Amino acid sequence: MKIIVAKSAGFCWGVKRAVNMAIAAAKKNGTVYSLGELIHNPQEIKRLETLGIKKIDSINEIPKNSTVIIRSHGVPPDIIKKLKEKGIFIVDATCPFVKAIQEKAISLEKEGYPVCILGNSSHPEVIGIAGHVKDPVIVENENDIEKLPPFQKLGIVCQTTLNSELLSKFVASLSKEIKEMKLFNTICKATKVRQEETRKLAQQVDMMIVIGGKNSSNTGKLYAISKKLNRNSFHIESAEEIDESWFKNIEKIGITAGASTPQWIIEEVIERIKTILKGGETVERGLCKTT
Amino acid sequence: MKIIVAKSAGFCWGVKRAVNMAIAAAKKNGTVYSLGELIHNPQEIKRLETLGIKKIDSINEIPKNSTVIIRSHGVPPDIIKKLKEKGIFIVDATCPFVKAIQEKAISLEKEGYPVCILGNSSHPEVIGIAGHVKDPVIVENENDIEKLPPFQKLGIVCQTTLNSELLSKFVASLSKEIKEMKLFNTICKATKVRQEETRKLAQQVDMMIVIGGKNSSNTGKLYAISKKLNRNSFHIESAEEIDESWFKNIEKIGITAGASTPQWIIEEVIERIKTILKGGETVERGLCKTT
Ligand code: F3S
Ligand code: F3S
Repeated sequence: MKIIVAKSAGFCWGVKRAVNMAIAAAKKNGTVYSLGELIHNPQEIKRLETLGIKKIDSINEIPKNSTVIIRSHGVPPDIIKKLKEKGIFIVDATCPFVKAIQEKAISLEKEGYPVCILGNSSHPEVIGIAGHVKDPVIVENENDIEKLPPFQKLGIVCQTTLNSELLSKFVASLSKEIKEMKLFNTICKATKVRQEETRKLAQQVDMMIVIGGKNSSNTGKLYAISKKLNRNSFHIESAEEIDESWFKNIEKIGITAGASTPQWIIEEVIERIKTILKGGETVERGLCKTT
Repeated sequence: MKIIVAKSAGFCWGVKRAVNMAIAAAKKNGTVYSLGELIHNPQEIKRLETLGIKKIDSINEIPKNSTVIIRSHGVPPDIIKKLKEKGIFIVDATCPFVKAIQEKAISLEKEGYPVCILGNSSHPEVIGIAGHVKDPVIVENENDIEKLPPFQKLGIVCQTTLNSELLSKFVASLSKEIKEMKLFNTICKATKVRQEETRKLAQQVDMMIVIGGKNSSNTGKLYAISKKLNRNSFHIESAEEIDESWFKNIEKIGITAGASTPQWIIEEVIERIKTILKGGETVERGLCKTT
């Protein structure tokens, strides 16, 4: 019997990295403050708290001479400045893909393009990118495009999690009005790869287990993809929900997980399956090229 | 009684310029050879022939030491080179808007972008632009986009007469696959302005006369726009078709014409109307901002 875990299951690369950086810093320096949730999973936030990673909502809550971790979303540069002024030690876990977007925005501005960010204006990643340039415009919907002043040229980047159909729609509208556009499609492939691997894995196994919050939309999407290709698909939130009866005549089990499912929940599921099966080999498998 | 002629009626600015340059050159140097039709109107071609402008299809037909006119569409640089080698005198009537596209293609290539031209690959303008860069790709339809090799980045220009909806569609598709795009919307506003002025004029007059070939699609479009806003609209090919009975209780007459309708046909129409009306004032009026 074989348990195949999709390499893209759970946290994306950038979030895994941020969590690891926070844990390492906490080990070294004691308490580490995170400006906002390091990861959108309340259980994981709690676990991280026991490791010394404390979520706070404002810079003012951070004591002097302490350590702060910048999340994968990144922050506007004035936040960094303020932290430095307060003499706070910074661990910058901004995802390198996000950092690249911030740098692209800066270089577009240097090249003389007004900078436009396609994405959610209240999302910390977008706020972070916007803070790196002088007069960014943020486009959330078609309505925002209609309200734009008449730009002769425009430099465009997008939020890493922007839906690719939306990007196309925005660019289609903008191309009608604007003479010159320089566009970076900065959508991160993590979500796409996770979905693609789920698709592939579901076709190679006798049974699929998709782990993640019942109201996590990205987990729901993974489950729908899996169920379509493998009727033997189950969506669970934790190991307890697993039923022994599922495993009759099962040789190969595939596992994937939503973007906010922590690694230890995945491991608990694997352990539980192994107990039921009385053994079994576990392999992690990347089925797609990642970015 | 007043006859208002839309400023955009008939030839676009670039074609008018080319025709005038050809006539001036013929006056000075005798015969002028045009590589392909200077204007897509057989009657006008004939008239130009009487003025010494001779259409030919290949460079080989041009005698040594003669004069050749480059049409508004432009040509690939190797044509210029061959002409120069043959010692032929060149009058370059490439439309400045087209020249600007050729220059944009060159500069995109210099900046390291593979160059993509959106348009009809067999159209002389597209062939001319394509000749200015090393390895251009030409996209005519969605199918061509699917067949593109995986570009990391792409520099894009388009044919001056590309439909703006098509441009949007192409750019939408390309933005999904390509990480970095630099796009110049090089659609010429001449057609749009001609339509816009027809729309405005039709609402200001008691009667509209739209002049152009019955199978000219752009003239048909102008007529449809006019008819919708002014029931008293007539589509004619020449002055002979005008009927006296049309002019009862008419004070203001609007005139527009398709892109391949020569000026002298427009003037014959005006003369005929003035004869019917026994007088009347003519004004030319630009109702839109032009590019
Ligand atoms: S945080 Fe994650 S979703 Fe992509 S941009 Fe970084 S890997
Ligand atoms: S030839 Fe005419 S259509 Fe525009 S590009 Fe030049 S004015």
